[in-house]
Amino acid sequence: MAEQTLSIALFSGTDDRLQAATTLIAGAAAMERPVHVLLQFWALDAFRADRIRKDHGTSPEAGAAGLAAMQRHGGMHWADVLAQAKELGDVTIRACAHSMEMLEFQLEDLDPLVESVEGVASFVADASGSVVFI
Amino acid sequence: MAEQTLSIALFSGTDDRLQAATTLIAGAAAMERPVHVLLQFWALDAFRADRIRKDHGTSPEAGAAGLAAMQRHGGMHWADVLAQAKELGDVTIRACAHSMEMLEFQLEDLDPLVESVEGVASFVADASGSVVFI
Amino acid sequence: MAEQTLSIALFSGTDDRLQAATTLIAGAAAMERPVHVLLQFWALDAFRADRIRKDHGTSPEAGAAGLAAMQRHGGMHWADVLAQAKELGDVTIRACAHSMEMLEFQLEDLDPLVESVEGVASFVADASGSVVFI
Repeated sequence: MAEQTLSIALFSGTDDRLQAATTLIAGAAAMERPVHVLLQFWALDAFRADRIRKDHGTSPEAGAAGLAAMQRHGGMHWADVLAQAKELGDVTIRACAHSMEMLEFQLEDLDPLVESVEGVASFVADASGSVVFI
Repeated sequence: MAEQTLSIALFSGTDDRLQAATTLIAGAAAMERPVHVLLQFWALDAFRADRIRKDHGTSPEAGAAGLAAMQRHGGMHWADVLAQAKELGDVTIRACAHSMEMLEFQLEDLDPLVESVEGVASFVADASGSVVFI
Repeated sequence: MAEQTLSIALFSGTDDRLQAATTLIAGAAAMERPVHVLLQFWALDAFRADRIRKDHGTSPEAGAAGLAAMQRHGGMHWADVLAQAKELGDVTIRACAHSMEMLEFQLEDLDPLVESVEGVASFVADASGSVVFI
């Protein structure tokens, strides 16, 4: 069952959750498990071509100490982890049609990591394995 | 596997997450996939009969721009999307017994979209497919 | 399928989400379903030996009324619910290697509920059932 698709509805756009999400995606890709990501709401906003590498803040619960730990730790930016996971494994990143409309984005407004636009029904139809909401 | 049940532990009670959750539920219903929702904590609070259509706020990360985008976009209220999904598909919405006790609610305090009260163990026992925490 | 493993990536460290997570874990353990928990980011911080029973705050959406309801309700601390679930069922709690490094923790800094350190790839490899992000 390890080759089951991981379907991730990525909703949150803060750097701590995006980092946790991409770690999970990279882990799945390393285990040769296909990953389908649907970007919604604030996660979609974080993938704007002109913003993806900007500061997206953290969850309020991170606090000053958590933020300091993240900054001290450094490491690869989550967008680079994601790019690497896409090269290494079967990782598809799509933008949710409903959120695209709400945020008034066109596909060309987004970072090239995002391949296309997809409706939620199609995302669910493909989700034969686990659905994860982040 | 597309007909696998989607079991959603709905915890969050902000309008952005409730909207994302109901979009997922409606998408699953459209694909003829059964959906079991267990309302917990702040999501349960959002389903109070006298509050379901009131303003439930958004995640802090939405910010002023995100909130403005949601309001400008408008569209159906998530409670109406949910009502439609229930008519269209096999969608069950139950209140978590533990959260009912904590919030001191009776079933009649809740919107009629909520059918009954259920314990978490029973919810998990029925969760033969994917469990999603929102 | 009820005996399928529930794999929980526990990211959030606020008391309301930790309480919801442990209720789910206890419910799964009661139904004889194995549970693998990977502690990440702020959830890992909440499991520090000297802090696990301290106040970890709540999500902003809880508000004053929600916090008051949680305090009025009282009941067992989530760490005790978790200890009981571990005795009762097949519950494994591990610390995410990446988060350990980021927060500069050693295993001995953590509560004994945490058994060992694990990478995300290994967590995903074992996740034959549902993956839940909390």
